[in-house]
Amino acid sequence: MTPEPTGPSGSLGVAVIGYAFMGRAHSDAWRTVGAFRPDLPSIRQQVLVGRDAIEVGRAAHRLGWSESSTDWRSVLERDDVDVVDVCVPGHLHAEIAVAALEAGKHVIVEKPLANTLVEAEKMVEAARAARGRGVRSMVGFNYRRVPALALARQYVAEGRIGTVRQLRVSYLQDWLVDERAPMSWRLRRESAGSGVLGDLGSHAVDQVRYLLGQEIETVSGRIETFVPRRPGERGPEEVTVDDAAWATLRTSGGAVVSLEVSRMASGRKNALQIEVYGSRGSLRFDLESLNELWACLDGAEFPTKLLVTEPHQPYLDGWWPPGHVLGWDHTFTHQAADFLRAVSEGDDPVPSFEDGLAVQRVLAAVESSAAQSSVEIQPEATR
Amino acid sequence: MTPEPTGPSGSLGVAVIGYAFMGRAHSDAWRTVGAFRPDLPSIRQQVLVGRDAIEVGRAAHRLGWSESSTDWRSVLERDDVDVVDVCVPGHLHAEIAVAALEAGKHVIVEKPLANTLVEAEKMVEAARAARGRGVRSMVGFNYRRVPALALARQYVAEGRIGTVRQLRVSYLQDWLVDERAPMSWRLRRESAGSGVLGDLGSHAVDQVRYLLGQEIETVSGRIETFVPRRPGERGPEEVTVDDAAWATLRTSGGAVVSLEVSRMASGRKNALQIEVYGSRGSLRFDLESLNELWACLDGAEFPTKLLVTEPHQPYLDGWWPPGHVLGWDHTFTHQAADFLRAVSEGDDPVPSFEDGLAVQRVLAAVESSAAQSSVEIQPEATR
Amino acid sequence: MTPEPTGPSGSLGVAVIGYAFMGRAHSDAWRTVGAFRPDLPSIRQQVLVGRDAIEVGRAAHRLGWSESSTDWRSVLERDDVDVVDVCVPGHLHAEIAVAALEAGKHVIVEKPLANTLVEAEKMVEAARAARGRGVRSMVGFNYRRVPALALARQYVAEGRIGTVRQLRVSYLQDWLVDERAPMSWRLRRESAGSGVLGDLGSHAVDQVRYLLGQEIETVSGRIETFVPRRPGERGPEEVTVDDAAWATLRTSGGAVVSLEVSRMASGRKNALQIEVYGSRGSLRFDLESLNELWACLDGAEFPTKLLVTEPHQPYLDGWWPPGHVLGWDHTFTHQAADFLRAVSEGDDPVPSFEDGLAVQRVLAAVESSAAQSSVEIQPEATR
Amino acid sequence: MTPEPTGPSGSLGVAVIGYAFMGRAHSDAWRTVGAFRPDLPSIRQQVLVGRDAIEVGRAAHRLGWSESSTDWRSVLERDDVDVVDVCVPGHLHAEIAVAALEAGKHVIVEKPLANTLVEAEKMVEAARAARGRGVRSMVGFNYRRVPALALARQYVAEGRIGTVRQLRVSYLQDWLVDERAPMSWRLRRESAGSGVLGDLGSHAVDQVRYLLGQEIETVSGRIETFVPRRPGERGPEEVTVDDAAWATLRTSGGAVVSLEVSRMASGRKNALQIEVYGSRGSLRFDLESLNELWACLDGAEFPTKLLVTEPHQPYLDGWWPPGHVLGWDHTFTHQAADFLRAVSEGDDPVPSFEDGLAVQRVLAAVESSAAQSSVEIQPEATR
Repeated sequence: MTPEPTGPSGSLGVAVIGYAFMGRAHSDAWRTVGAFRPDLPSIRQQVLVGRDAIEVGRAAHRLGWSESSTDWRSVLERDDVDVVDVCVPGHLHAEIAVAALEAGKHVIVEKPLANTLVEAEKMVEAARAARGRGVRSMVGFNYRRVPALALARQYVAEGRIGTVRQLRVSYLQDWLVDERAPMSWRLRRESAGSGVLGDLGSHAVDQVRYLLGQEIETVSGRIETFVPRRPGERGPEEVTVDDAAWATLRTSGGAVVSLEVSRMASGRKNALQIEVYGSRGSLRFDLESLNELWACLDGAEFPTKLLVTEPHQPYLDGWWPPGHVLGWDHTFTHQAADFLRAVSEGDDPVPSFEDGLAVQRVLAAVESSAAQSSVEIQPEATR
Repeated sequence: MTPEPTGPSGSLGVAVIGYAFMGRAHSDAWRTVGAFRPDLPSIRQQVLVGRDAIEVGRAAHRLGWSESSTDWRSVLERDDVDVVDVCVPGHLHAEIAVAALEAGKHVIVEKPLANTLVEAEKMVEAARAARGRGVRSMVGFNYRRVPALALARQYVAEGRIGTVRQLRVSYLQDWLVDERAPMSWRLRRESAGSGVLGDLGSHAVDQVRYLLGQEIETVSGRIETFVPRRPGERGPEEVTVDDAAWATLRTSGGAVVSLEVSRMASGRKNALQIEVYGSRGSLRFDLESLNELWACLDGAEFPTKLLVTEPHQPYLDGWWPPGHVLGWDHTFTHQAADFLRAVSEGDDPVPSFEDGLAVQRVLAAVESSAAQSSVEIQPEATR
Repeated sequence: MTPEPTGPSGSLGVAVIGYAFMGRAHSDAWRTVGAFRPDLPSIRQQVLVGRDAIEVGRAAHRLGWSESSTDWRSVLERDDVDVVDVCVPGHLHAEIAVAALEAGKHVIVEKPLANTLVEAEKMVEAARAARGRGVRSMVGFNYRRVPALALARQYVAEGRIGTVRQLRVSYLQDWLVDERAPMSWRLRRESAGSGVLGDLGSHAVDQVRYLLGQEIETVSGRIETFVPRRPGERGPEEVTVDDAAWATLRTSGGAVVSLEVSRMASGRKNALQIEVYGSRGSLRFDLESLNELWACLDGAEFPTKLLVTEPHQPYLDGWWPPGHVLGWDHTFTHQAADFLRAVSEGDDPVPSFEDGLAVQRVLAAVESSAAQSSVEIQPEATR
Repeated sequence: MTPEPTGPSGSLGVAVIGYAFMGRAHSDAWRTVGAFRPDLPSIRQQVLVGRDAIEVGRAAHRLGWSESSTDWRSVLERDDVDVVDVCVPGHLHAEIAVAALEAGKHVIVEKPLANTLVEAEKMVEAARAARGRGVRSMVGFNYRRVPALALARQYVAEGRIGTVRQLRVSYLQDWLVDERAPMSWRLRRESAGSGVLGDLGSHAVDQVRYLLGQEIETVSGRIETFVPRRPGERGPEEVTVDDAAWATLRTSGGAVVSLEVSRMASGRKNALQIEVYGSRGSLRFDLESLNELWACLDGAEFPTKLLVTEPHQPYLDGWWPPGHVLGWDHTFTHQAADFLRAVSEGDDPVPSFEDGLAVQRVLAAVESSAAQSSVEIQPEATR
């Protein structure tokens, strides 16, 4: 018996552009979303796009794609492609995303939205225009899809911790601790835009806006390059991006946020740590313990440690019995499902390109304040 | 461009029997193993087998199978099926596995190997016979594929903790704490074989044998049913399996093991906890924190907390950068890969059916000792 | 101005016998109890007793005693001594305690009560006779005075975790891991009575009885000496006590207890770990984190981590503000205060000598069962 | 036999001024220091000073003092008083400390050194003058005497974590979370000087200087009063101090420090948390787990969790066997011992009054920067 055909008619054709780290994570998600959410429209893994024909062909085969291509423009013209998922480096986001939206394709763009504010603003304009035509867009801040963080947001929204006063967010890694670690494109401003600020800081700022549902109104920032020179292919080369960054932010709701991001934190592998303190409780999270949330709710005296694997918690009803923990890559499956649901119901998925732009304005303000002896400024002023 | 064909010639056709909890977990693994280990022979998700034609058709579609079937016997006759993966309840294992082996199919059987020692022994005989013909078999103790536990075994094998003297293993869940939790097939001896002993105890005993590479020589056991009656469909019904079990084991290497398993441990969701104490160090693990291993190695004074997500650690080079944690279901992908590697290299995969039988002999000895006031006995004596 | 005299009339004179590890800990407690509980009768640190006149004189000076003595019998005759606190090795407990009770002194005896059941029974008889004359006695299981454990007992007694079904207790240390660790009196049966069983096991068994308020009805035990020979002063010498012990116990309330004690657990310094699982919740404790208690109460889904330093928690109102943690030695101050309160109110302090005897019967039963292939026996049967 | 007389000649007479929270903690320390460090000169608890004759008399009795007094000036004139330990509120520090130093008494002043920079500078001058006459002085930052932090400093000094780049310090409590918590002298600028900044921030800044052995060169600060009005005795009253404060600091060695202190952090009781990241490792500490230190040393990949109770670790050889944890108040005993050692050896104890002043300059700079939109300034500029 042949599997029940939901039929190409009812299903959505997907193209992923890029097949490196993020391209693989997104491919895994598209391959899994049907098992996770059988109630959503099914998708077809139509085509994987990359520059090297041989390599992208191999990747397509092993990642479950029907075809591969080296020409993203031609993919935008295909009728059997409904969704374009952009997983290439940031400086290519704007061109592809804008073209795809204009071609009537729903678009997901990996975070950060773009490398510059100018590009990001262009993308927002394209998204607005497309929205009027029922064409959807989203930026891929996948940590919004960590069940523990989705639960945290829910608790904040429900008032379980009262009015939020303080939020502490840090994102610490250690892969650049050693000053002998070699130079790379990630450490050059021209290719990477910024250092840890755009890479880890963008996740951190998105979480602040997501968890509180508030805007960032003022920013005081500091940035630092601890290792100013690293071994390049032709001898020592200058590092032109930040190794670490700090900021305090004031939100539209009057909360104060402290932010710290670094790639020089020995012993920290992927420690996105978030603490939210309100007038009636608090929440704590660490990405290295992705399935856990510490919660003081409703004025409780002490924190409870939740293992976020219960079917009544966000995203969990599509997975396994309690205590069977999820991994980092499950967040992409959740993201794909949320996107599919919005598209199929004619809603705008979140986070929107506008959300992506808002994050980048905050990051730009951190850099700008840092250049002015940390004086407090408004993100809008960075335009 | 069409994805590069490794070709049906070089690839292996897989059939999974069963599409419930375990059938889905195994399906996800077969769908993902190519992305995880592109160097292995590719597989074809040929056919998913189940009893309900409609349901298995839907499941096949969403889990990535080319076809579905309601007749496992006919599937054994197909030339395009090379591997049969048995995910049905334990009392059906023997019949299907033996037939599949006789039909020349490589076989994986979900743990526990069987519900009775007699069936398990029959399966071991079939596996031995098949082995002579190059037909491979394995029992699915997936926790051997938790990277942290694979690393623990490696440390033990390398002598990093010296001679092992004590091993503490407990597997605690809490889904039966409430005495109002309803009666089910899992609580009846005729359908489940045993209670927590076969379910969680089998994992625990397999880990002891796996980590130490030793046999269990003597057993003193105790079992208990704390809630002897539960609400059935027609009023209170007697629970005929154990709620909790305890044992001390002596291994062939002179270590003493304490074992405790329970479904009545409030607040514990899926806590397989293992501690190994040797003459030069120790190791600690908790499945609820699947990516972590605590290790005192080489006579160190204090334990180090490892985040087992580094590319140089077992299974991790096929996944993400450091700190990007794995989930419970990744273990099935590792299992599929290990099986494929063995089959493609003409090796016998582990754990073998013999391993599965050895585990069941220990469990039977626990029950037998418990019936004799905990007096110490030898597992062989239970035959 | 001279400090307000509560007056020798109203105060109690204390003598401590022994000035080593335990003698110092008890001296610190007597010196501190007035600051901790100003409402209790004040005490006078009258005399410290030891065998070496020079050493005990020095110790008395630095530990705050008015006098020192080398003759405990003469101390029992003094009118200015009301309390005798026995901190010498176990084989001397019976003689001193019985004589002190007969001399009309209130008596504290460090745990374990005695080295043999015969001695312990003699002490119980003396305590009973003295009780009729208003003379009080207590055995010093100081861990009953850890605030977190006192709180745990309170939660159990209040029914906050329902009916207790399972209790897991282990007490693990690592100072004998190295097989080159030298022989000592603690490793010879004639001087130490037993090994880890009497030393750590007695605390463990006392906690079971304390937390549950139940008796131990049956015992299945196992003991082991992993390092049978250690370097003595004149070459290798045989170790004649246990290195590790295991037991399962059944209590009068139908709970099953697993117990494991060891001095060979690499990386564990002083890990008395207790887990109590009931029909409506659970409790967890580790002595290495003395100020913490994990509690699932009233059917809660997840455990809360309590920092037991709040003034409304046991013993804490006599100390510092919340979050200012206590240490191991504070438990002796609590013990001294509880003893003083009972004496001043004409009550019998707990744990009584009968409690001490009950613990030793269980330990004897563990040894006895171990000698009979772990068969389950009743503690009374060991008499 | 009378305790061996070290003799009043060789011993030091101590007076403590104040008998509230800190007066009691210091009294406990003086009473215990002889048992902790028998090798140091012994001390006599000569006189406790307070304003209420009845109360101070009672306190003296129960805290072990020979006498009490209501007149600190007369105490300075006594020949039997060698050490004056000032435990009264901050605005009284300068007058008493300066007078005591001029009277030739060695002086300890509880932190913070004073409420104003002017007073602190006066005290530093007096300390300098006294030093020339062999009269010693110290400010009581007791957390320098937490064994785990002393060990951390030792590791930094030995280069075990390389060059320090980032230090994160936060000190979070929760006793003001509830906006109904009443007004008190601690919330009025005139009585308290500042809010959480002087109270918890002073400890935090002292730790930065202590751990790194470096000065703070620039400061960017922010302060906040989240609850601007609280219930006073005659209706709502304005809170005139800070509830929370943030800063980034740059040290003389080029490290960047982030600092956050708050009394509004629900679920945090006394969480002084410190993380130090260097070029070859890192260290982590939390005061709520006072006996623990997490350390990545010498380029290790993962952190080790040390239980700081081993005799070879700082301060521990004067206490108990491994694993027998210390409490918060033991730090005052360590402090008393360090002070006694310095005095007896003719050395200047640390932290000096100059250290206390340096801390206050940093705190003043935080306030000053906060008043200037967080712009980065130099602490000296606040004079």
